[in-house]
Amino acid sequence: MINIEEALNIINKETKILGIEKRDLLDSVNRVLAEDIYSKDNLPPFNKSSKDGYAIKSSDTFNCSRENSCKLKIKGIIKAGDFIEDTLKNGEAYKIMTGAPVPKGADAVIKIEDIETEDNNLLIFEEIEKDNNIIKFGEEIKLGDLAIKKDCVIRPVEIGALASLGYSNINVYKAPTVALIITGDELVDINSNIEKGQIRNSNEYSLKALVTGLNAEVLSLGIVSDDKENLKEKMKYALENSDIVITSGGASVGDYDFVKDILKEIGADIKFSKIAIKPGKPVTFATFKEKLFFALPGNPSSIITTFQKFVKPSIEKMMGKDNFDSEEFPVKLMYDFHDEVGREKYVYVQIKKVDGSYCAYKVGSQCSNHLMTMSRANGIVIVPKEIGDVKAGQVLNGKFIFRK
Amino acid sequence: MINIEEALNIINKETKILGIEKRDLLDSVNRVLAEDIYSKDNLPPFNKSSKDGYAIKSSDTFNCSRENSCKLKIKGIIKAGDFIEDTLKNGEAYKIMTGAPVPKGADAVIKIEDIETEDNNLLIFEEIEKDNNIIKFGEEIKLGDLAIKKDCVIRPVEIGALASLGYSNINVYKAPTVALIITGDELVDINSNIEKGQIRNSNEYSLKALVTGLNAEVLSLGIVSDDKENLKEKMKYALENSDIVITSGGASVGDYDFVKDILKEIGADIKFSKIAIKPGKPVTFATFKEKLFFALPGNPSSIITTFQKFVKPSIEKMMGKDNFDSEEFPVKLMYDFHDEVGREKYVYVQIKKVDGSYCAYKVGSQCSNHLMTMSRANGIVIVPKEIGDVKAGQVLNGKFIFRK
Repeated sequence: MINIEEALNIINKETKILGIEKRDLLDSVNRVLAEDIYSKDNLPPFNKSSKDGYAIKSSDTFNCSRENSCKLKIKGIIKAGDFIEDTLKNGEAYKIMTGAPVPKGADAVIKIEDIETEDNNLLIFEEIEKDNNIIKFGEEIKLGDLAIKKDCVIRPVEIGALASLGYSNINVYKAPTVALIITGDELVDINSNIEKGQIRNSNEYSLKALVTGLNAEVLSLGIVSDDKENLKEKMKYALENSDIVITSGGASVGDYDFVKDILKEIGADIKFSKIAIKPGKPVTFATFKEKLFFALPGNPSSIITTFQKFVKPSIEKMMGKDNFDSEEFPVKLMYDFHDEVGREKYVYVQIKKVDGSYCAYKVGSQCSNHLMTMSRANGIVIVPKEIGDVKAGQVLNGKFIFRK
Repeated sequence: MINIEEALNIINKETKILGIEKRDLLDSVNRVLAEDIYSKDNLPPFNKSSKDGYAIKSSDTFNCSRENSCKLKIKGIIKAGDFIEDTLKNGEAYKIMTGAPVPKGADAVIKIEDIETEDNNLLIFEEIEKDNNIIKFGEEIKLGDLAIKKDCVIRPVEIGALASLGYSNINVYKAPTVALIITGDELVDINSNIEKGQIRNSNEYSLKALVTGLNAEVLSLGIVSDDKENLKEKMKYALENSDIVITSGGASVGDYDFVKDILKEIGADIKFSKIAIKPGKPVTFATFKEKLFFALPGNPSSIITTFQKFVKPSIEKMMGKDNFDSEEFPVKLMYDFHDEVGREKYVYVQIKKVDGSYCAYKVGSQCSNHLMTMSRANGIVIVPKEIGDVKAGQVLNGKFIFRK
């Protein structure tokens, strides 16, 4: 049995970035940029008015005041999208709309709220500084400048920025295909009534939701019966057709838990098969050529816990992402907790802020078979492996789960 | 000009839950459950072994010890998915696999790691308590019990829980269709070179990414020219065919900003048209029959800021979600900041944790036209409207943006 940290280090060492693919801009949200993006233009590509107002020469407003207004001749109007070749001369002004190019000769824009007009003349009652309300040519970025660095996660703002730079498709890191094999002769389809000894196949659904939530692809082989030859064929097929294989169940110590035997037979390199975590101890991690293989426990709560802790960082690293785990913070456990020393325990709880500090309330049995408990939880409290029992009122580290 | 809180209250008051639709389970991730879910079964549907081991009568282990082992006859094996009618008698044991039903008569399971076998006999070296390693019939949930409450956001764990309960489709709240109208005669397609006076249409892309990121539907009408009759037709079409309409640009005070005029002409109820926020002051919010209309400013940074602050909570409420805004926390501003009093300022920064406290570093001009600045930011610092200038070292509230 190895520690969580060791397990994560081993997995991390075996996980490589998959490769690069070109994708349409809007299909790249939450993917990671695999190239440096340089600006193909100066932005803005012209001196641009940031307000609706009048383009003027600032020198024409020298000594203007409420008592001593200045008068300029309005020569015309410049709308956004227009471009005029005319050069503004002293004593002249152009009406100008937000986003429109400031004409040559003008060096300031006065807001429409601050002026008056009289016939075809503009009246100004204050001194205006040079560059007032002008977004200067190339102020945001210059032609050839590095705009967005490689390895940046693409958020809606990067979508906008890339669009403004004229990139309609970009190179991003590939997302892995994750094969799912659900083992267990007790499993039936979720639309079935459950007969004696049976339960419904919920793990395939949780895993599909978890994998697609990370923007990775799912290749589900569905329920595979506890028949060794059949399972072996499915495992080989999965390894050939995906980047990561996950099995649910069949990796414990029972007579019908064939996954580890098959891994040995096909020559996979088994790195470890037990982790000091609760729920979820029986996790086997193996590599086969460039592929990763995670044999996760069949209990519904264990499989979600171990997926989030061990598989998620691996999928994210393949896609070029740093592992973003939600931050841990101190949480006061509000009830007595009993367990054994030896494994780090992830206790599913409801975390609430009470008088400025976080408190963790019981939501049900921590039995790894009970998904209902996790469904009532919004967080976990982490009980270190050296500790078995915790008294109500003790403060431990905790964090939120599934939080957007 | 109204305050941010007032604006949010008005929008909230006008926003109603849209309705209910039935969706396939896996298409319901991140949607909100619109019905109480009751269990159609007892889970587990039988006394279930939580370990690989032997099903026994606990009374048969009375006084068993390392020195004085007890011997039971192994009658057979029960695999997961099996169900045997036989009743265990004193002196007997069944080998049993994890997940398999415990036979009648047995009241405990001893782990395979803790026993020895000799011929067809089981040797036990310790006293085993009743219910050891048994997950009891109905322990997780009973037939008819409330399993998952209405209004719960469906996370991967709920997908698993609903699958285990046999729900392959469920009632969730409908997601709104959000129509996008991008105005501005200076805008060109993102694949175009930019000629004099033009810029690329980035707002349509940012908005599409933002709306789809909330699991809502986009109906994009693309770039609409600054021609009043044309814009009016498009606005009417959008109102007929969506739940929320967003316009980008055209809602300022310029001669060609027709959106507000058209809203008045068609009889929309304009609730406000300026908010004390920077970036993003010129936000018009109107209602037309049951539809909501947001006229957002055209500056790329303003539109993302105002979408996140004002439109996102409205979309989420329609879908039955509580507004989940990332939490604010104290952040030390690491540079001198200058602005005016009067609006609450959202300053885009890079927030880093240094020696246990959060520090905000400058990432570029706060000009609302500069998307590059926001692209370098991972958070905002909020400068209250009563404050204009902030000295380096002052602590303000901040939060992360776009954080999963």
